Amino acid sequence: MLDRLGDKWTVLVVVELAKGVRRFRELERAIPGISQRMLTLTTKRLWRDGLVERTVYPTIPPQVEYRLTPVGHSLAGMVNGLADWSREHKDAIATARATWDADQEADRL
Amino acid sequence: MLDRLGDKWTVLVVVELAKGVRRFRELERAIPGISQRMLTLTTKRLWRDGLVERTVYPTIPPQVEYRLTPVGHSLAGMVNGLADWSREHKDAIATARATWDADQEADRL
Repeated sequence: MLDRLGDKWTVLVVVELAKGVRRFRELERAIPGISQRMLTLTTKRLWRDGLVERTVYPTIPPQVEYRLTPVGHSLAGMVNGLADWSREHKDAIATARATWDADQEADRL
Repeated sequence: MLDRLGDKWTVLVVVELAKGVRRFRELERAIPGISQRMLTLTTKRLWRDGLVERTVYPTIPPQVEYRLTPVGHSLAGMVNGLADWSREHKDAIATARATWDADQEADRL
């Protein structure tokens, strides 16, 4: 399951669904660069894992809605926590890298 | 930075260092399957990002110790939170998958 969090598309779909119910097309529009095939695969996996609920309305054409289950919401909470952590420490990490690179450069001279 | 959490070796090194200071050889032994090259690369990246501190003792041969910085510790906290989440929901996810697979099978018959 932890491996799954390394999957960019899974993370983006979970974050989007944390905002509310979404139709397939809405997810597609909200996640630039995702192909229809990849979105189908990602939502199917999340559905199979019980993290997402899928409702089909028998309209023409049929409408499909996705929403997080309670377990899915708890995962979204963790993912948002990580995203917050990442935002909070972005500058510190960038500074650390710049310092490290400068030190290495100095050692080389 | 979030991408990095999809890297299994980074996660395992961070989790191991969350337990305390480790020498290179100790990390190597604690993480089965990691190659010396991959461990060198992983610790170097974490060091460059300011998540890990590296101390070299001028013994013969030189001893190298790694420890988490405060930022590294806060990341370890997030990672451990995810691991806890994963453990807590493992059974629920396995059950959801089995139910889903059985439903698909039933639809096919």
